[in-house]
Amino acid sequence: MDDAQGTPPRRGAYEKGVRRRREILDRAIEVFAERGAEGTSLRAIGEAIGVSHAALKHYFSSREELLIEVYRAAEERSIVEDRPPAGVSVVGIMTHAARRNHGVPGLVQLYSTLVAGALEEGNELSRAFFGERFALLRRFLAERVEAEQAAGRIRPDIAPEAAAALIIAASDGLQTQWLLDPRIDIEKSLELLEGLLGR
Amino acid sequence: MDDAQGTPPRRGAYEKGVRRRREILDRAIEVFAERGAEGTSLRAIGEAIGVSHAALKHYFSSREELLIEVYRAAEERSIVEDRPPAGVSVVGIMTHAARRNHGVPGLVQLYSTLVAGALEEGNELSRAFFGERFALLRRFLAERVEAEQAAGRIRPDIAPEAAAALIIAASDGLQTQWLLDPRIDIEKSLELLEGLLGR
Repeated sequence: MDDAQGTPPRRGAYEKGVRRRREILDRAIEVFAERGAEGTSLRAIGEAIGVSHAALKHYFSSREELLIEVYRAAEERSIVEDRPPAGVSVVGIMTHAARRNHGVPGLVQLYSTLVAGALEEGNELSRAFFGERFALLRRFLAERVEAEQAAGRIRPDIAPEAAAALIIAASDGLQTQWLLDPRIDIEKSLELLEGLLGR
Repeated sequence: MDDAQGTPPRRGAYEKGVRRRREILDRAIEVFAERGAEGTSLRAIGEAIGVSHAALKHYFSSREELLIEVYRAAEERSIVEDRPPAGVSVVGIMTHAARRNHGVPGLVQLYSTLVAGALEEGNELSRAFFGERFALLRRFLAERVEAEQAAGRIRPDIAPEAAAALIIAASDGLQTQWLLDPRIDIEKSLELLEGLLGR
């Protein structure tokens, strides 16, 4: 157990770097939760979160990388801090996430901006991140659909993959409509979908 | 019928301007249908469509206005040229549009970019355009849902407004997933939704 007796310098510097990077992301999440990225430059983001441009460039190679890492960290944090209740339905998982997003419109906006950017040529980092994220989420939800079918809670004639893509699409699209018009009732439409899948 | 005898000069100039603006939009639609806006400047767009920067600025006050007008013109044109078949279902309308969009991925990408932009502060033009567009589309589809309920084709216990928002969200979200992964079967998921609403 040599490690317990003394941490070699390189490891200490590495850990300090990881901690500092984490602090930057935490601060950025707070700022973005309120007002989104708003097309600001890396320099302007640095000013908003009180971190020098040089420090930002040390930890993140580009604005795109910083924004993706902010989104990834925010999502991971929210999953850890605010899990959906045990035994919740597959649509309930998305409803829970949508309810959580209600308090952080800036992060929903950041998500929309990043996804739209991923569809444009040149943003390979975003494209890879969201391509993988959507694929993972579809697989996860398709497995949940299968489990609910086995438990008799979702109609057996529904294709799990098609249902998973539909549930994610509904959740994403409803959040976009809600950002443009706060009267949109995301939960009501998602509950409608849940009821339809269950009959 | 004075107008038939001779067009006054101002009117002629106005009509020429309308025609020229229309030509610019037509050319832009062709270019964007293939490759989207890709974050290019008004100047770069002018070069791509073979129109001088000065001419573009004469007809469009900003890049945002040009892109919205391109999207609006493309959508109007596709509605006129390729109507959904008579008697098609409410989900069928969106499936028809999604199938049409398959051939013009650049316009789907332009739509995503504009909607994401509309969610950011400062883009009031996009915000107003898409806020109104979504509201109109929801009202139109809600009326179709009611008509299908009256005809016994959609379950009577479904709230038309919630269903309309859900159908639009599903269609938008599925097209985003498809742009990131062409294996996504938009029609299969929309047909699933249609079947669920009908049972």
